[in-house]
Amino acid sequence: MSFDEQMIEGRNAVLEALRAGRTIDRLYVQTDLKDGPILTILREAKKTDALISRVTKERLDQISPGGHHQGVVAQTAAYAYAEVEDMLAAAEKKGEAPFLILLDGIEDPHNLGAIIRTANLAGAHGVIIPKRRAVGLTSVVARASAGALNYTPVARVTNLTAQIEELKKKGMWFVCADMGGELMYRLDLRGPIGLVIGNEGSGVSRLVREACDMTAAVPMKGDIDSLNASVAAGVLAYEIVRQREMG
Amino acid sequence: MSFDEQMIEGRNAVLEALRAGRTIDRLYVQTDLKDGPILTILREAKKTDALISRVTKERLDQISPGGHHQGVVAQTAAYAYAEVEDMLAAAEKKGEAPFLILLDGIEDPHNLGAIIRTANLAGAHGVIIPKRRAVGLTSVVARASAGALNYTPVARVTNLTAQIEELKKKGMWFVCADMGGELMYRLDLRGPIGLVIGNEGSGVSRLVREACDMTAAVPMKGDIDSLNASVAAGVLAYEIVRQREMG
Repeated sequence: MSFDEQMIEGRNAVLEALRAGRTIDRLYVQTDLKDGPILTILREAKKTDALISRVTKERLDQISPGGHHQGVVAQTAAYAYAEVEDMLAAAEKKGEAPFLILLDGIEDPHNLGAIIRTANLAGAHGVIIPKRRAVGLTSVVARASAGALNYTPVARVTNLTAQIEELKKKGMWFVCADMGGELMYRLDLRGPIGLVIGNEGSGVSRLVREACDMTAAVPMKGDIDSLNASVAAGVLAYEIVRQREMG
Repeated sequence: MSFDEQMIEGRNAVLEALRAGRTIDRLYVQTDLKDGPILTILREAKKTDALISRVTKERLDQISPGGHHQGVVAQTAAYAYAEVEDMLAAAEKKGEAPFLILLDGIEDPHNLGAIIRTANLAGAHGVIIPKRRAVGLTSVVARASAGALNYTPVARVTNLTAQIEELKKKGMWFVCADMGGELMYRLDLRGPIGLVIGNEGSGVSRLVREACDMTAAVPMKGDIDSLNASVAAGVLAYEIVRQREMG
């Protein structure tokens, strides 16, 4: 299911979108407004997964496509989010051990799109992204995914660490990408696995790293610090594929 | 050696840049101009590696940063190009079999930057790009390379097929990335090797593919056609690293 990403502005339009169940990634509300209609919008938004950002009027003027925002702009998702449960069900239906890719704060839409594309081709059952400090399913992401968003489900969760703990109880193992980790070839990456890729600049956050069972490093034979995040995700995802296929 | 990418406009400025030996990636010349100064600029440009594009005045007006182009704009490289010979010499000095990455028409500067970054970390001795129908070393590429351009040399050649044939005579083997090829795990990718990655949309061109010794495929377990070009380059480069390291 796809629809165009859109910025919806103005109080009535935003309230209607919320009540119609449209997936809203982010709601921008002018920081000094607390009147009745704004409070109604905030109340409705809190029932959804929307991330609410309080911003200045100047910032809203920039974000607003038509300039008639009345203190509120909603950024809708270009694609619908999936549920993690459905990814596990899809793996079970295929008779495969679950293989998920979790992204701890990818900010660049081209990276997110490329990783969804990789997830599709590496046979991963889904991608999990956090609600905060990360790019959502915008139209740029959809384009960069080269169609993979039509096949590979993406779920959006409030707390990545809690999600990992929950999936560990279901028998999944988690490996996080970190240049300080064990050389990936030496780890056993077969079985039900979640691959965790960190933010472009800061890598995997401490809490998420501590929740993982293993830390995997790609061999680094050069002078610089790290691979591009989507390349690192590709190299590690395909090491999982290799171990699964070649035993 | 790095310097800022720049658009140089105007007849005197462009001629001075050419005579000073500044690396010019592309020279834009207004299509209907054939006067003396323009012919002098063209004659000087032909002594260099600059790609000459004849464009309309309207296009020049768009490209020109200041609007005073007088029929000519030169796009300089953000980084200096290297020679293929120097890459082979660097490999020999390190006592390593040469490992080069050849790009058959990468157009997206973010992809080129990410591939140079991968080349650095995978221990490749250099990257070779064609002069035509490909992005050069622009400042966007330099940024996307995350510093790798300071370490990993990039050469620019007129004819990629001729370059491959020349390197084959020196004992190198060439493997091109193509989804119709042999599964990469089944190929012997050790020894002196050139990895060829194709254009984002059309892949490796026929002549280049025919010049290669092997065609390698990444396992495709999904619904879409291909990986992002920089991800494919990363997965294949690291399969070469794995075979070299793990035997």
